[in-house]
Amino acid sequence: MSEAGAGEKRFPRCGERFPRCEERCPRCGEIVRSYRNPLLTVDIIIEVSGGGIILIERKNPPFGWAIPGGFVDYGETLEAAAMREAREETGMDLVDLKQFHAYSDPKRDPRGHTVSVVFTAIGRGSPQAADDAKNLQIFPFDRLPENLAFDHALILSDYFDMKAGYN
Amino acid sequence: MSEAGAGEKRFPRCGERFPRCEERCPRCGEIVRSYRNPLLTVDIIIEVSGGGIILIERKNPPFGWAIPGGFVDYGETLEAAAMREAREETGMDLVDLKQFHAYSDPKRDPRGHTVSVVFTAIGRGSPQAADDAKNLQIFPFDRLPENLAFDHALILSDYFDMKAGYN
Repeated sequence: MSEAGAGEKRFPRCGERFPRCEERCPRCGEIVRSYRNPLLTVDIIIEVSGGGIILIERKNPPFGWAIPGGFVDYGETLEAAAMREAREETGMDLVDLKQFHAYSDPKRDPRGHTVSVVFTAIGRGSPQAADDAKNLQIFPFDRLPENLAFDHALILSDYFDMKAGYN
Repeated sequence: MSEAGAGEKRFPRCGERFPRCEERCPRCGEIVRSYRNPLLTVDIIIEVSGGGIILIERKNPPFGWAIPGGFVDYGETLEAAAMREAREETGMDLVDLKQFHAYSDPKRDPRGHTVSVVFTAIGRGSPQAADDAKNLQIFPFDRLPENLAFDHALILSDYFDMKAGYN
């Protein structure tokens, strides 16, 4: 394209396009050039010895059981975020951490567009729920709960297909 | 953790932690709660018939040859972003689009922390550089240029290892 279209912002130095969106200062209304981008998260499918995976019951909307995870910090690798979130939410250390797949459907989180890079790992240590009183439970592969939050039913279905050699 | 630490912001409704960072309004100095997150990009290793991959020579810093890619828009899936960027930067449609791996080293882009989900695909159509006059060239696998931008030398090395069955 020869010219940037209306509303299409580009980095002034390199010409690369910014993600679209403007935000306004809540006090004075000034447009703050904070271009909107999907928020990046990690989720971790943690297998434990003896079989089964760890799920956490959410105490806040969206309700249901979820694989552990959370937001990636600026300056943090995906792998470091996965290790940190697993420790914060389950008290476990991870070994054999591997990237599985990234999920990016804009409707996967009702709170806004998040893109999750999903990892698989083996958990070491005794799993325990975080102090903010979320429930934590180990579920055998063939007896997962019905009420899975976000797109975690799809993620786990893809994971079991991969384990069975279907993709 | 029982209490959120100082500077650790959480979504008021669900208690999930925000990525850290505050920005101030450039006019009035008000803190705008626009928490910083790594910016999400896609890059696409496009193979063409007859062998070889498409690289684009950057006209702006960081200089060098790069695999095509760009920022993911809010509300856009990773796969849609990959198709759009390939079309914008090379004029090609993609078939057999597959996720390869995500790269997240905070130093991979000197302009700021970007996380790239890298795809592989086969390109269809005649490749042509975008109007903003970037150079485009098909390189045989065994004759890549020396000056690759970002972490694209690592990405391509991983890709060739994968093709050779090393990982």
